[in-house]
Amino acid sequence: MPSTNDLPFPVPAGRFDQKQEMFKRASWDEKIRPLAARFYREVDYREDDGYRKIDYALRNASWNLEWGAALGNSRSNSGLYAWEGVPAKIQHFVETGGPVTQTPAAMSRAIKAAAGFFGADLVGICRLHPNWVYSHEYNLITGEHYPLEVPAGCDRAVVMAVAMDYEAMRSAPTGVGGGATGLGYSQMAFVANLLAAFIRGLGYRAVPCGNDTALSIPLAMAGGLGEASRMGLLITRQFGPRVRLCKVFTDLPLARDRCRPFGVEAFCRTCKKCAVHCPSHAIPHGEKTTEGPSLSNQSGILKWYVNPENCFSFWAANRMDCSTCIRVCPYNKPGGILHAIVPAVSRRTSLFNAFFAWLDDRLGYGTEVAPARFWGRF
Amino acid sequence: MPSTNDLPFPVPAGRFDQKQEMFKRASWDEKIRPLAARFYREVDYREDDGYRKIDYALRNASWNLEWGAALGNSRSNSGLYAWEGVPAKIQHFVETGGPVTQTPAAMSRAIKAAAGFFGADLVGICRLHPNWVYSHEYNLITGEHYPLEVPAGCDRAVVMAVAMDYEAMRSAPTGVGGGATGLGYSQMAFVANLLAAFIRGLGYRAVPCGNDTALSIPLAMAGGLGEASRMGLLITRQFGPRVRLCKVFTDLPLARDRCRPFGVEAFCRTCKKCAVHCPSHAIPHGEKTTEGPSLSNQSGILKWYVNPENCFSFWAANRMDCSTCIRVCPYNKPGGILHAIVPAVSRRTSLFNAFFAWLDDRLGYGTEVAPARFWGRF
Repeated sequence: MPSTNDLPFPVPAGRFDQKQEMFKRASWDEKIRPLAARFYREVDYREDDGYRKIDYALRNASWNLEWGAALGNSRSNSGLYAWEGVPAKIQHFVETGGPVTQTPAAMSRAIKAAAGFFGADLVGICRLHPNWVYSHEYNLITGEHYPLEVPAGCDRAVVMAVAMDYEAMRSAPTGVGGGATGLGYSQMAFVANLLAAFIRGLGYRAVPCGNDTALSIPLAMAGGLGEASRMGLLITRQFGPRVRLCKVFTDLPLARDRCRPFGVEAFCRTCKKCAVHCPSHAIPHGEKTTEGPSLSNQSGILKWYVNPENCFSFWAANRMDCSTCIRVCPYNKPGGILHAIVPAVSRRTSLFNAFFAWLDDRLGYGTEVAPARFWGRF
Repeated sequence: MPSTNDLPFPVPAGRFDQKQEMFKRASWDEKIRPLAARFYREVDYREDDGYRKIDYALRNASWNLEWGAALGNSRSNSGLYAWEGVPAKIQHFVETGGPVTQTPAAMSRAIKAAAGFFGADLVGICRLHPNWVYSHEYNLITGEHYPLEVPAGCDRAVVMAVAMDYEAMRSAPTGVGGGATGLGYSQMAFVANLLAAFIRGLGYRAVPCGNDTALSIPLAMAGGLGEASRMGLLITRQFGPRVRLCKVFTDLPLARDRCRPFGVEAFCRTCKKCAVHCPSHAIPHGEKTTEGPSLSNQSGILKWYVNPENCFSFWAANRMDCSTCIRVCPYNKPGGILHAIVPAVSRRTSLFNAFFAWLDDRLGYGTEVAPARFWGRF
């Protein structure tokens, strides 16, 4: 079992059963099922921008690689996230010449070059702690519930972030913002699928995953991609929480990255902008706790626990997903030198955090932008 | 039948049988089959950069969405290029509310906003001339040969270009350059699949295609994406020939774009850099003709005909695809103001074309860059 001594954040004492996750409960839990029906099947198109049929068409189409070919939100090890297999056409490229052997450091550089080329905006490498793997999977296609294990030896993780579209996300929680989310999911499947093919082509095993199989956030933290936050999502230095995560587990020997905290915890303690703007009061205003408010939380670790039931209630009322917390987070910026100054300072001192959060608000960052900006005159 | 009077380039008098296309002949033509075997199945990894196992792994993985899930190079109407169907989850989003109706101009703007969002770098809209549709398809999976028709009414085409990676393409004709090509094919499938899902979500039919079903280059020319060239590929103003094309046919009423020639023909007459650098002498140095040199050409139109048999011979000898013509073309530039000046001038006058072509060479553009630039120390 890999040592956790080098991780500056706690690892859960046990594994999480994915059956308890909100979108699985939407299938089997009578408390949540009505919300899912409103969210997915009782949609009324409205006249207001962001909720017209065209907005739903954009949101749904953005998801199409995930919903149509990847299915990582429904189960593991299928579609573009299949754990084995290469096209027959290239079978002999894998079989001949033996595995590529180089130092783990050189292998990590190559993996990062390839992942970036395929479209990953951030790439980190870490060990897969066994407790980050779900104990069980609830298969949304078959309704089956069964124990889950990653293939033996595949204990290195390549964790990747794809940035979601800044402009579209400014229109959260409408269909245009939902398009940014869906596109992120489709890109996750694209990138993980290609990177897994690359690793297999080097002669090693590769297990590509979206949200399935294991917790993405601690993996991303361990791989140096960012920090946990008040809103429960990973905050990256480059894009704030405006990323989606995917990962590939492999038996290819790789050099690991380090955790790189940059002051998010202290900033979140002061800022609270996500908690203030959350339309469903799903994000806590208070201190960290060791106990989450619902069945879908993995309690036992000191952190900010969101309330996924409240969150999903708003999705149902909104007839669309949300992402307001991502939109309003001061770390969600489009890039540029000016926007790099605040994280550079707050990484070193928390003295100005209250001022930064106040300034962010005063400058109008995080304000919802009308979907007309995306569609133009339509 | 749509009028062709508004097209400033000739339309073929008949339709082309895709069985004659080089990659189909690689399956059935005894003259070409040995080349395909060398290209695909007799690969020896070499020690030199760009031909190691890692380079093949990159090239192959880049293709994985096409080879593993799209299959547009093997047949039409399958995988990510299926002509019908939406995920069950969103069936009711399509069925309720009726089709979205707006002016063709507004519909075109929306299609372009969505296509750009999904990852298309250029988008144009035109009518599909029936003679651009292949008369027959040769199915690489089953070996069947059958007539092909686009569904009735789907006579509007949305043509999209995805730009290939400039830096990787500088290492053509190695595996790193081949990676840029393969990634382009995977992105074609991604973008066409999502755009087709979007159009279906609006309540219309959508037929997504890669290289299958119809000739992409005249479609792209008619849609205003660029011009034909000496090397036979489309030249765009923004990326030169460094693009891949895909298209979606639909019955959604759309406003058309116009052809926008920008001086490529005159430039190609003078430049000849692609013909000089082509390792297989597949690109003509001389004037346009009305007759192509091989079975794979569609003769009958005055243009520069490449020799696909020569081209593919080099692929077989190289054990890798090529793209040297794309790399050396003076229109292939990474963007920026300086690089926009030359096309802006040559669009208006051909007086300086010889000087521009000479200067391009003197400045070292198009020189092959070692794959080490991509991989770093590996």
